[in-house]
Amino acid sequence: MTHPIPPGTRDVLPEEMRELRAIGDRMRAAYEDAGYGEIHTPALEYEEVLLRGDERAAGARYRSFDDQGAVLALRSDMTIPIARVVATRYAEAEPPLRFSYVARAWRATDRGVGEPREFLQAGMELIGVPGAEGEAEVIALTIEALTAAGLRRHRVGVGDGALYRGLLSSFGVPGEAHLPMLEALSRRDLVGLEHQVDALGVSSSDRDLLVRLPGLRGGPEVLDEAPGVGGLRSLYEQLEARGVADRVIFDLGLVRELGYYTGAVFEVYDPAVGFTLGGGGRYDNLIGKFGRDLPACGLAVDVARVHLAQAAEEALS
Amino acid sequence: MTHPIPPGTRDVLPEEMRELRAIGDRMRAAYEDAGYGEIHTPALEYEEVLLRGDERAAGARYRSFDDQGAVLALRSDMTIPIARVVATRYAEAEPPLRFSYVARAWRATDRGVGEPREFLQAGMELIGVPGAEGEAEVIALTIEALTAAGLRRHRVGVGDGALYRGLLSSFGVPGEAHLPMLEALSRRDLVGLEHQVDALGVSSSDRDLLVRLPGLRGGPEVLDEAPGVGGLRSLYEQLEARGVADRVIFDLGLVRELGYYTGAVFEVYDPAVGFTLGGGGRYDNLIGKFGRDLPACGLAVDVARVHLAQAAEEALS
Repeated sequence: MTHPIPPGTRDVLPEEMRELRAIGDRMRAAYEDAGYGEIHTPALEYEEVLLRGDERAAGARYRSFDDQGAVLALRSDMTIPIARVVATRYAEAEPPLRFSYVARAWRATDRGVGEPREFLQAGMELIGVPGAEGEAEVIALTIEALTAAGLRRHRVGVGDGALYRGLLSSFGVPGEAHLPMLEALSRRDLVGLEHQVDALGVSSSDRDLLVRLPGLRGGPEVLDEAPGVGGLRSLYEQLEARGVADRVIFDLGLVRELGYYTGAVFEVYDPAVGFTLGGGGRYDNLIGKFGRDLPACGLAVDVARVHLAQAAEEALS
Repeated sequence: MTHPIPPGTRDVLPEEMRELRAIGDRMRAAYEDAGYGEIHTPALEYEEVLLRGDERAAGARYRSFDDQGAVLALRSDMTIPIARVVATRYAEAEPPLRFSYVARAWRATDRGVGEPREFLQAGMELIGVPGAEGEAEVIALTIEALTAAGLRRHRVGVGDGALYRGLLSSFGVPGEAHLPMLEALSRRDLVGLEHQVDALGVSSSDRDLLVRLPGLRGGPEVLDEAPGVGGLRSLYEQLEARGVADRVIFDLGLVRELGYYTGAVFEVYDPAVGFTLGGGGRYDNLIGKFGRDLPACGLAVDVARVHLAQAAEEALS
């Protein structure tokens, strides 16, 4: 007699659970200390409501039905539910608003064998602070919360999700050609991307920039290699003022999958492990879709991955 | 533009969330101190696996499907998943085993307007300690954990889920007549129950006992009023030895809804509020259904209800 559990899920036994709780608790305390109060939203929401936030993630949701036949879905992140809460429960509140969460999310798609489908996220959302000022606060707090959780070598990769699309437009590439190229970029398929660039028929200097840009990765010097990066330059100054500029890696090829990001995008790394710990970015149009037009950005990490990174750091030291 | 959330669910904003977290954290710490390590299990399980534990609760589950078409269900409690974990991950471990959880569960049935369908439970399971000794440990620890969470007036109601059925059998009432009577009893429909008893055609002294038993509620003196309560008498002695006998109310009409209870059943009350805070009992056959035959009992409370009771106690004091 076997009693399987669904692929991508796991039982967590007490010894590991204690360590995961400790990471979540320390991150929550760091968020709280910075004024980010924790929010809980229902695991199941009306799918129609979640779709207002982002149509592209819809395929990744576990669906169910209520007794009236309405389609329910397990949330696949906390950003869309918090955008809903801001527009409804904080419709009149003076911005900025600061919220955090330590909560599970679910994704039904199989993005690879062993890829988790239920995961515990710790994250925060800063609502009503536009541009580099908001992004710097989010990045600095994430670095601090991960330090509180016990990491020592973590870094935040920063890109501009609108940069490549903007270059394509400025080079006269028609809109319908953008999506396959952005998809290749988000998969980090630089060979496939180069073939697509070659087929565009743009000038050789434009072609060189489109091929070179995704590989530009490093300190603030990479910002000298590309046009249209004034926002990232301001962000660097803000990060310097907060004393965390050395923890940031600019990555001009960085594009996040989710459709709601409008500008800066973030990924969290630890050199001790080969996977990203989490990500986020600026989403200035999302809350407006629920009826309150406010700029926002946020960042979340996967607690189980933070735990693995912590163990890997200890093994290295 | 409205953005409803499903009935029976709610958004929890930071001020309340802080208080709910504090209750969960204090209860978890009390469980941990007593040797009950926390376990996490997936929110979604194969329905077929959950049904091995209890067929009767199946209708109360939210269902979904995986990409192979298998039926998944959101867990409606943590007792069945922990029974599965004990039989699989602790198949060789020496009993007793002690586990706790602070976790959400979901029930799809509408048991009344405004009845929650997503709730946060704090609870524990004691595996491998039979009879009154195990039950006393579970009751005493629940009382202690709720004291740690800030309650002062809480009580545990204790009954024997097998008592009424045993009386019916001993009075020669055929098995098929038991279920509707036990259902009336679990609804506390004493008028309906009395009608059913009158239709049985048993002797007048048997009839009197069947009608009187559900109303027997109070201190150890109620145990003198009924036959077949030797187990509850032993439990009282154990509770006296642990110094918590004055927090317990015997309730001979207490029957819990779930099908897996085999003996003692518990409900948690606070005189400051009119609803139960949680419940549990002994389930000696459940883990065996997953392949390891061990007696067990457990008790869980609804954290949001504990929070309401705490506020009501403060308002009264």
